[in-house]
Amino acid sequence: MAIEEITGRIAKDLEYLKRYTATPGNGCTRLPFTKEARKAVDYLKELMKDAGLEVSEDVTGNVFGVLKGENPEAPCVMMGSHYDSVVNGGDYDGIAGVICAIEVARQLREQGVKLNRNFVAVGFCDEEGMRFGTGYFGSGAMLGHRDVEYCKKFKDTDGISIYEAMQEYGLDPEMIEQAKWPDNSIGYFMEAHIEQGPVLDTEKIEIGLVDCIVGIQRYMVTVNGRADHAGTTPMDMRMDAVDAATKVISKIPDWAREKADGTVATIGYINTVPGGMNIVAEKCEFTVDIRSKNNDNINDIANRIRAALDREVQMMGGSYEMDTKLVITPVDLSQEMLSIMEESCKEHNYSYKYLPSGAGHDSLEIGQQLPTVMLFVPSREGRSHCPVEFTKYSSFAKASVVMTDLAINLLSR
Amino acid sequence: MAIEEITGRIAKDLEYLKRYTATPGNGCTRLPFTKEARKAVDYLKELMKDAGLEVSEDVTGNVFGVLKGENPEAPCVMMGSHYDSVVNGGDYDGIAGVICAIEVARQLREQGVKLNRNFVAVGFCDEEGMRFGTGYFGSGAMLGHRDVEYCKKFKDTDGISIYEAMQEYGLDPEMIEQAKWPDNSIGYFMEAHIEQGPVLDTEKIEIGLVDCIVGIQRYMVTVNGRADHAGTTPMDMRMDAVDAATKVISKIPDWAREKADGTVATIGYINTVPGGMNIVAEKCEFTVDIRSKNNDNINDIANRIRAALDREVQMMGGSYEMDTKLVITPVDLSQEMLSIMEESCKEHNYSYKYLPSGAGHDSLEIGQQLPTVMLFVPSREGRSHCPVEFTKYSSFAKASVVMTDLAINLLSR
Repeated sequence: MAIEEITGRIAKDLEYLKRYTATPGNGCTRLPFTKEARKAVDYLKELMKDAGLEVSEDVTGNVFGVLKGENPEAPCVMMGSHYDSVVNGGDYDGIAGVICAIEVARQLREQGVKLNRNFVAVGFCDEEGMRFGTGYFGSGAMLGHRDVEYCKKFKDTDGISIYEAMQEYGLDPEMIEQAKWPDNSIGYFMEAHIEQGPVLDTEKIEIGLVDCIVGIQRYMVTVNGRADHAGTTPMDMRMDAVDAATKVISKIPDWAREKADGTVATIGYINTVPGGMNIVAEKCEFTVDIRSKNNDNINDIANRIRAALDREVQMMGGSYEMDTKLVITPVDLSQEMLSIMEESCKEHNYSYKYLPSGAGHDSLEIGQQLPTVMLFVPSREGRSHCPVEFTKYSSFAKASVVMTDLAINLLSR
Repeated sequence: MAIEEITGRIAKDLEYLKRYTATPGNGCTRLPFTKEARKAVDYLKELMKDAGLEVSEDVTGNVFGVLKGENPEAPCVMMGSHYDSVVNGGDYDGIAGVICAIEVARQLREQGVKLNRNFVAVGFCDEEGMRFGTGYFGSGAMLGHRDVEYCKKFKDTDGISIYEAMQEYGLDPEMIEQAKWPDNSIGYFMEAHIEQGPVLDTEKIEIGLVDCIVGIQRYMVTVNGRADHAGTTPMDMRMDAVDAATKVISKIPDWAREKADGTVATIGYINTVPGGMNIVAEKCEFTVDIRSKNNDNINDIANRIRAALDREVQMMGGSYEMDTKLVITPVDLSQEMLSIMEESCKEHNYSYKYLPSGAGHDSLEIGQQLPTVMLFVPSREGRSHCPVEFTKYSSFAKASVVMTDLAINLLSR
């Protein structure tokens, strides 16, 4: 099968799937357990059936297509990504990885590959966590990490819990533990995804071999001072929360730069209370997001922030809280599987580069317990989670070729 | 008249006036052209009448009480402050200065002082500018600085213009220029006010002799970067608006401290756009409020901010705007009138201190063209513009004694 033909059928599938958005004309909005999700899943099922796969949907809304191997009891080779999106997101984040998995199944059949074990294409439900403020729902449930209590706990902005949303969608949340696959039933996991960053696009590289999903620590910091009149309170009688907070914030990005190994730190949100032009701020709240493939670097930056806050707050005479919102340790992906993909890139003459994933993915959840690998394709200008997200269809075609090579290797075992 | 008796009648007046708030139990909310303002003005008129003054209200809602002197054509001695408040403000800011003026009139009569010219007690309308985002409305109109266009231009949050609010209140905005007093009709202006800062309270000083009203410059700064994914965008491929902005913000308070002459600088408001924890900020907006009795210091800090923004924005690759919101040059108050008050403090054995006013006042508007003086009384913990604002009634009594001495001197001329 020529790369142009592969490109063509991936293009057709993704163009079709673009329709299933709650915000036509303004990007993809395909939240979990909505009618857009239902339509996308129904279409994925059709594509899987056409590709000769045995289709099923589990109790969490994950959709699976199985290409039977000679030894169906052996741990399978699974490939896929998620079919949900953020609000006003792009047309590729997640769903393109599901289409690539179906495309790999097509190529396996077309090439008449002898499968010693099952190949499973999967579309996971609710990776983004946008609706309920969570994430990795379907892949987590597949691994047995979600339960009824979890479904009842998290709610969307309308107060609808995952539990209620599932019921309305026609799923039985009481059965959620049935979504867990038996131990040792999955041998390998592979995921194609857009990079969502600018590296491959900037450096004009066709394939990203993801060797690691970075660790993340997130904090909400509140610096507490005292509100005072901006005109009548001398500088030495103030407890200015902005003064103390910005003396810390302004150093954080440089601490990440110093690491010089891809470590990043972001203060995306700052808020002042009461926020009046002529009032010394009583509170200054800010978020910190630190990511690195080296967990020590994350811990070091978090510790420097604490030490700087201690110092500045003591100078000011106020106080602070630093609440931990998220702690994820880095996950190393399968070096063996990466090597097989690297060989494939060389064979097909695709330019490639090893790089870490700075974003979380279903592979983050799965890679913690199974041999897992990710392949990135370039995102134009690194833009994603927005309507202008763009990746060439030929990039997905190349990804499917490399991942078919990997699948052939793994399925022959 | 013993100081205790003076304290008693000031207490009675201010306790009575506390009723005229739109937020009973939660501080004073007496916005201009409201029924609370009307009731306060009616009560002030009664007090003025009882004190033997000739009462009038002008077309802007200012209320005047005249104690006739032998030469009513000579430039008068005027004393007063404003009767409006901010939302959920205190019971003293403004209105206590009106009561002190009426109290001075009482003492002038009681002491049988011979007046060579008129003494005028005044309650100005809408000094705070809270409702319409303006300020010094009544005092400005008295000086001929307000017109019909101005009244039509500024609106409250319900879209009601000053023009419409005046009409509903029973005033004719078309007549606003009648509020202007003839040139040379006002000889001197004096204002008693709470400090609204912590200096007198902290240093346990009874009387503040205000030698200057500081200049103010206010800016709204917007730093423009680019929104990027906080995980997938390497540090050297970002245009992080927060990084650039906080490197500037964190230096501003120290630049004010360096001046070591009471110069203050405040960043009361910071906002990030889009404000997501995991998104590099595209915009970081912040306000700057700089005040000093030395205008060169204000200009120097504003220039340093511009230079630092130039530098940081060039490093980042983005842009910025620095919009001027307010420029007021410092106003020196009457040294001659201050000396008379200082003598009075010594005579009565009141502790006193010269200090600048960090806040604007009707005296700022008036002091730009007439010999003007202010006297401050201590504010507990420097708190004002809030329900816990507190000043002892005896402080106002002492203020009235000192200002009566000043009035006697001026009225004898």
